[in-house]
Amino acid sequence: MSDLPKRVRILEEGPREGFQIEKGPIPTARKIELIDSLSETGLEQIQVTSFVNPKAVPTMADANEVAMGFTRKPGVRYTALWLNDKGLERAIATQRLDIKGSLSLTASEKFLLRNQKRTLEENVAAVRSIIGMFKHYNVPINRGSIMAAFGCNFEGDISVERVLAMVKQLHDLADEGGIKLEIVSLADTMAWATPGSIQKVVGAVREKYPELELSLHLHDTRGMGIANALAGLQMGVKTFDAAVAGLGGCPFASHSGAAGNVCTEDLVFMCHEMGIETGVNLEKLIESALLAEEIVGHPLPGSVMKGGSLDRLRQKVADSRSAR
Amino acid sequence: MSDLPKRVRILEEGPREGFQIEKGPIPTARKIELIDSLSETGLEQIQVTSFVNPKAVPTMADANEVAMGFTRKPGVRYTALWLNDKGLERAIATQRLDIKGSLSLTASEKFLLRNQKRTLEENVAAVRSIIGMFKHYNVPINRGSIMAAFGCNFEGDISVERVLAMVKQLHDLADEGGIKLEIVSLADTMAWATPGSIQKVVGAVREKYPELELSLHLHDTRGMGIANALAGLQMGVKTFDAAVAGLGGCPFASHSGAAGNVCTEDLVFMCHEMGIETGVNLEKLIESALLAEEIVGHPLPGSVMKGGSLDRLRQKVADSRSAR
Repeated sequence: MSDLPKRVRILEEGPREGFQIEKGPIPTARKIELIDSLSETGLEQIQVTSFVNPKAVPTMADANEVAMGFTRKPGVRYTALWLNDKGLERAIATQRLDIKGSLSLTASEKFLLRNQKRTLEENVAAVRSIIGMFKHYNVPINRGSIMAAFGCNFEGDISVERVLAMVKQLHDLADEGGIKLEIVSLADTMAWATPGSIQKVVGAVREKYPELELSLHLHDTRGMGIANALAGLQMGVKTFDAAVAGLGGCPFASHSGAAGNVCTEDLVFMCHEMGIETGVNLEKLIESALLAEEIVGHPLPGSVMKGGSLDRLRQKVADSRSAR
Repeated sequence: MSDLPKRVRILEEGPREGFQIEKGPIPTARKIELIDSLSETGLEQIQVTSFVNPKAVPTMADANEVAMGFTRKPGVRYTALWLNDKGLERAIATQRLDIKGSLSLTASEKFLLRNQKRTLEENVAAVRSIIGMFKHYNVPINRGSIMAAFGCNFEGDISVERVLAMVKQLHDLADEGGIKLEIVSLADTMAWATPGSIQKVVGAVREKYPELELSLHLHDTRGMGIANALAGLQMGVKTFDAAVAGLGGCPFASHSGAAGNVCTEDLVFMCHEMGIETGVNLEKLIESALLAEEIVGHPLPGSVMKGGSLDRLRQKVADSRSAR
């Protein structure tokens, strides 16, 4: 475990990933309540909503109200998701978000066809047009991402060579657009990653692109989320997406057990116990997780929110000693 | 990840750990049904029940009926738990179990006092008397265990030195009794372990006792079960206790969120995906997990039982290719 970073950045995606999949309508005020609660935890980035077609994703129809309603805390970056220029324009128009561009490729054409109705070639064209759009709006870009980087329900295993080719393609697209690509997110969109494949893929990309910062987006459908994060940490990965309380799941992955992102507070807990800083106050984060569970009205998968932190137990033990 | 074993042994504890904590009475026939289902999965050892005081643990009052009722499959070892000579006598009397002795120490005196109402000294005396009992009944012994080896809700962190002292004490007790101690189980009874402490404790014990086989008993209360198993595998650990579907939890640990053992099928899935053999048929094990969930009548924490195996998806992808 020699490559463990000293500090990691955890990018919170719960309010966006999480509420997207809920069946019952979540009142806008309650979404805002969760964001405001998360703002107090020390998280440095929170993805607050998704500017997508409200007909396709009705749970995100209040994206604008959410973006206008939360309280910006200095030092926290607030981001949002969009899939096209219309979405980007809506996000920019709020003037309340930290808009950053990203170049998104998908390692599986079959998934791309189902998820975004594009071939690989059409997607590259779309990325070019998105770069143009970012430039038009003066949106900074330093990031790329590769969806389905570890496997696909419709295409099977994704080879390391494919991922390397996609990273090269991201570099080529960036170069072509005069963009400096600094960070690439590898997304385990359909939960195919295991610690072995994390090691293999991250290792190969790191070896070929040692300057590139890697970020992991890990889904927990097969219970591997935290173990995959551990494997990532061991490979020196310093940036992780996560969702408070394990909120979420991908409505397009079309398998019933699809779970959300790796749980933020479980990941923070593991990091802290291993001496890795996150800047996050775990007890406050647990409060946010319990709030998220109350808001959705059903049990969420997070564990530390139920089992409690060890620091709290350590404090109890210390108190009972000094009380004697 | 260089120390990964080629093959691991997974000791199934679901029927014992799992049914112990359930509130509603589980019909004996259904307990037997789960054991018989597990016998078909390739698991080499199944702990079927617990011969404890039925007044203290009413859910285990049918221990004898369970032991008499399941079908022994050749090649599978069937074990049981007991805490005193009365329990051992009942287990032996069934003549249907693979009775093996174990020397059990606990790293936390406070937990020992609560859980077994004994001081550390009284416990050592109890172990001596248990050794006498094993000898009297000609029960083979090659195993010791250390409960609360990673931390305790009532005593806090447990130092590596304490664990090393306990391993030495196990050796001394074994020597004194003319027993060859071959395997020691480190139990994370109250879910204090994290990958860092697994590495530290397992590493220290391995360094001092390189001949000793180590086994891990991991609870999942803080969501670290699979990541801790990964850390154990990376340290060369080859034997793990696990519970199908994540059944279980310890009724004596007295914290509400206490979860069961690491989930058998999630662990098997991770091992197989990392090229580590288990001898277990994952699809059959998933069927057992779904049966366990049906028997207890509420959702169980296992993930792969919900998300499905990747081999099944790979097969689907291959089928759809050949169908063209």
